[in-house]
Amino acid sequence: MQIDVESASDAQLLVAVRKGERRALAKAITLVESTLPAHAKRAQKLIAEIIVSADSSVGAGHTLSKTSALRIGISGVPGVGKSTFIEALGLYLIAAGHKVAVLAVDPSSSLTGGSILGDKTRMEHLSLADAAFIRPSPSSGALGGVTDHTREAILLCEAAGYDIIIVETVGVGQSEIAVAAMTDLFVLMQLPNAGDDLQAIKKGIMELADFVVFNKADIDLIAAQRAVAQMRLALSMLRPSSKFWTPHVMCLSAFKQDGLADFWQQVVDFRLKMQASGEFLSKRQHQALAWMNQQIDSALRQQFRQHPAVAAALPALSVAVENGSVTPAAAAQQLLALVN
Amino acid sequence: MQIDVESASDAQLLVAVRKGERRALAKAITLVESTLPAHAKRAQKLIAEIIVSADSSVGAGHTLSKTSALRIGISGVPGVGKSTFIEALGLYLIAAGHKVAVLAVDPSSSLTGGSILGDKTRMEHLSLADAAFIRPSPSSGALGGVTDHTREAILLCEAAGYDIIIVETVGVGQSEIAVAAMTDLFVLMQLPNAGDDLQAIKKGIMELADFVVFNKADIDLIAAQRAVAQMRLALSMLRPSSKFWTPHVMCLSAFKQDGLADFWQQVVDFRLKMQASGEFLSKRQHQALAWMNQQIDSALRQQFRQHPAVAAALPALSVAVENGSVTPAAAAQQLLALVN
Repeated sequence: MQIDVESASDAQLLVAVRKGERRALAKAITLVESTLPAHAKRAQKLIAEIIVSADSSVGAGHTLSKTSALRIGISGVPGVGKSTFIEALGLYLIAAGHKVAVLAVDPSSSLTGGSILGDKTRMEHLSLADAAFIRPSPSSGALGGVTDHTREAILLCEAAGYDIIIVETVGVGQSEIAVAAMTDLFVLMQLPNAGDDLQAIKKGIMELADFVVFNKADIDLIAAQRAVAQMRLALSMLRPSSKFWTPHVMCLSAFKQDGLADFWQQVVDFRLKMQASGEFLSKRQHQALAWMNQQIDSALRQQFRQHPAVAAALPALSVAVENGSVTPAAAAQQLLALVN
Repeated sequence: MQIDVESASDAQLLVAVRKGERRALAKAITLVESTLPAHAKRAQKLIAEIIVSADSSVGAGHTLSKTSALRIGISGVPGVGKSTFIEALGLYLIAAGHKVAVLAVDPSSSLTGGSILGDKTRMEHLSLADAAFIRPSPSSGALGGVTDHTREAILLCEAAGYDIIIVETVGVGQSEIAVAAMTDLFVLMQLPNAGDDLQAIKKGIMELADFVVFNKADIDLIAAQRAVAQMRLALSMLRPSSKFWTPHVMCLSAFKQDGLADFWQQVVDFRLKMQASGEFLSKRQHQALAWMNQQIDSALRQQFRQHPAVAAALPALSVAVENGSVTPAAAAQQLLALVN
């Protein structure tokens, strides 16, 4: 019997999340995404309990047990076929006994597709599967906030027993960097044409990618294979030797469900290599520390600029700095002196 | 008669700098680069006086007068010919009546060339010219500090009457981004071969470049022209339409002093377009505000982490975050609570 998530206490909610109840999980994520201070407190408590709890069999938090979930980031421009790929991959993984959660970072994510129907119109088959949980992106808020919530949503999904967490983002602004910083493996989806490749290189995304996947290989296999070869050549020049992992470049057809098994074999191989080399653990540790430091720095910035004396002095000093009558260094010192 | 810069008061030093005395300018820059707190105070005062002074005819600070100096950033990998180019360009500009200052950002800059002889062995002719001032990079210090000092050195050079300020850096780490953030125009020097192009694209430097200059065109003009054509094509795809300025791509031979006049004509054209569109002023204003905010954030980070309670708690909490027993968010909140 499912609990009434609307009236459930946080403790009841946690129990229900741990049982894998999807409505409870959805409710918990909503709590985490809430901008109300009271909710934020409850959410933090919830997350903390998930992490410190010893009976969490799925290895929530940032430790790495053999059973812990794999976090996969997937990015690509609109139209590249992310939804089709994620749905096909999700169904493939569910058939293999996995539980798959799909989270989206970005208000303009293809999960919502700009439509109020949201995930109802996308990933139709996957969203009906018992072993799948699909969560569209929060529809508002700065990226920073959204991604903080996504990190916590990952932990909640893991607590609910999902062992494959897919975080989807579109290639807009900082969202890809944010997603790469919260996942174990970052997949860049591309279309087999040169302009697209250059776009990826331009945005520095290639540096983040562990996998480069050319989708829609069914349309023109020759073009897709050429794109794979070109990308491998470019990557061999771009990322010479330092990383233990050479990004895996491949083509597939999400629509025809062709190449999924090969893709997944490579992912499993990647994970084993990462774990054997210690990269997996050290990446998660690094991500956790970086997240802590980001939150501290962001809070310090916010506190400083909200300090009444600073808030009062900042506009005039900014103008003075802009018109050159005060140096940036002197303005910084004046402002810092107001709070010390 | 020159003042004795060693015993001069700061007021005397400032007067001498304004007269364009190179030893006084060098001394003032040394003061600015000093890590002694007492020197830092004096340096700040000096810089502030330069900026607020109404009789500064060269438009120091971040305002833009018709007569203000042009700040040019030049980057490229070692061996690309930066020193040869800067020397040739500097001599060309001096012949045209300009005063040229050359500053270096980066301990491994070609200005010092890893040699204790420093600029004595480089830019031999330019360093002898009365209208030139050459300052090697500070040999120590984190990049952040070095670039802060370079910003102030730019102001000092402008106060001393130099109207062309060239800031040179090698393509290492964050130095190019730092130099682009303190100059009006950023020049990327390249050698005419494909591997080099990709390196530049990889590091995201291409996004910073206003000019891409292929040097050593005398060795193989056909290869240089091909490189120019390829780069133009790549840039047309990489930077589609948003900027008012399409990066100017050209080849030249610094060694043969061939192409310098064309380069300079393009720079003048760039400046006029920037000024007409308002970009020039808004870029400087943006740079000044960004610099202020950087200094504030850096100070806040440092103060926070040096706070005794934080410094005491941080190591254990970092370990707890790394091993997953405390969430990054909870750790950040605990640490922030220590100082509030």
